[in-house]
Amino acid sequence: MAARFALVIDPAAAGDGLSDWSATFTVIDPAAPALPVGELSAQRGDGVFESIGVVDGHAQRVTAHLERLAHSARLCDLPAPHLGQWRQAVARAAAHAGSGESVIKLILSRGIEGGQSPTGWVTAAPAADFAAQRTDGIRVVTLDRGYAVDAPARAPWLLLGAKTLSYAVNMAAIREGSRRGADDVVFTSSDGFVLEAPTASLILRRGDTFITPAPTGGILHGTTQVGVFAHLAAEGFEVAYATLTVADLHTADAAWLVSSIRLAAPIIDIDGRPLHLERELTASMNAYLLSPRD
Amino acid sequence: MAARFALVIDPAAAGDGLSDWSATFTVIDPAAPALPVGELSAQRGDGVFESIGVVDGHAQRVTAHLERLAHSARLCDLPAPHLGQWRQAVARAAAHAGSGESVIKLILSRGIEGGQSPTGWVTAAPAADFAAQRTDGIRVVTLDRGYAVDAPARAPWLLLGAKTLSYAVNMAAIREGSRRGADDVVFTSSDGFVLEAPTASLILRRGDTFITPAPTGGILHGTTQVGVFAHLAAEGFEVAYATLTVADLHTADAAWLVSSIRLAAPIIDIDGRPLHLERELTASMNAYLLSPRD
Repeated sequence: MAARFALVIDPAAAGDGLSDWSATFTVIDPAAPALPVGELSAQRGDGVFESIGVVDGHAQRVTAHLERLAHSARLCDLPAPHLGQWRQAVARAAAHAGSGESVIKLILSRGIEGGQSPTGWVTAAPAADFAAQRTDGIRVVTLDRGYAVDAPARAPWLLLGAKTLSYAVNMAAIREGSRRGADDVVFTSSDGFVLEAPTASLILRRGDTFITPAPTGGILHGTTQVGVFAHLAAEGFEVAYATLTVADLHTADAAWLVSSIRLAAPIIDIDGRPLHLERELTASMNAYLLSPRD
Repeated sequence: MAARFALVIDPAAAGDGLSDWSATFTVIDPAAPALPVGELSAQRGDGVFESIGVVDGHAQRVTAHLERLAHSARLCDLPAPHLGQWRQAVARAAAHAGSGESVIKLILSRGIEGGQSPTGWVTAAPAADFAAQRTDGIRVVTLDRGYAVDAPARAPWLLLGAKTLSYAVNMAAIREGSRRGADDVVFTSSDGFVLEAPTASLILRRGDTFITPAPTGGILHGTTQVGVFAHLAAEGFEVAYATLTVADLHTADAAWLVSSIRLAAPIIDIDGRPLHLERELTASMNAYLLSPRD
């Protein structure tokens, strides 16, 4: 949905250890022109981002998101973000998010073509209503991401562990899933391992153990997946990172896609095979994910 | 370099067969804010583009570029561009390009998040000075693109034949090449075939035959490569499309990277192996590429 608040920040502003970054923020009209056409985010998808869930004005897991933003920036040879500056920008955006569920986006771009400094902005918008997907589940199909599971280690320039703005393939995969009658997609490696969804992490259940594909270089380490694992461990379940095949997914006892905004969406159908929908457990995951978490 | 002319166009304007599209153009200050933060080009690298060379105000090979823009749009499920509209926008930009060499960029984005229509813009900027690279050549290294050569046919959602705005990996590969002491990069498939450079096509020479990797779905069909082949054929050489291995590149008699703005840059070193620099032939290629071509 359209943003209702936007803040441009100057990521190159001097000020390590500054306690008040507000002089480096400019609140703008989120619908007004803000970026020149020379922006490398717009020309080249050259930058990194994060999406943070907000519940009744509380931004969830901000530190984890900021640390991942810094990790993505490092992989892309972007200047290290001042975490204090971004944290204060998130707080300003959260104060404008209103009640209910919202999404705060952080974008750090390489800047204007020919320039020397990055640009950054933060927006807040109402979240879409995912109640039906959280309760009744989603249908997914697997799609080949094209890379072998060892590609990230061999070829770090593929940026597979970075959350970059170059998401055209992720968006195309979701459209292809939709053409196949599915709500979402699980990417697989070219050698048959399951990875993640275009904008979510995968968790599957086998007995009383919950497993997610190991976050090697090719998979983003999902902040929501980490949260769900903490919740499940506290409930007495086993949690594990493992290398999983497509067959493991097809024969799982249950499975979920988890992400910062949609939260836990149970998978009820994978490649045309029905999966058991665990209503109570899913409701407890989402109640946990909607509770204030730092 | 910074654009000196920019034009926003409305790609969704009605008007098939319209003879004058100027009412759908808005000339803007290229340095001023123009795109809202909700632009999907900036958030997701979600759009397609072309770069057209301009010599003394003449835009080169406009029809070929517009046809490729339409092809990229089709692969990305974007609305088909009105070619007459874009052609007139290119003419407007070319009129402001000035003498010498310039670059016109065309960008067709999916539009504003939550909106229903694409956005588009056209810029003109002075080209960088590539005289030294055209004359004295470039050093390149091969880098794995991560995909097997059959990935595009298996997985069209990877958008490998589309010139999308999601170029973060292309830019990262060029930075990695630079760290290795090279001026540019040749991408290889994960199974050992040579593909293309991040922003150029590859041509190699073997005896009196000039060969480029076959433009299957994984390689953009280079407008400049097509021009160079026409020139070479007119000069009496054989030209061919073929599947080429890294060994073929290492043992070529000569090789070039060709693109719309840098034109023909002879490769003088590939992965640390020297390659013969054909000064006269390269000069004739560049003289041809700098002559007015439609």
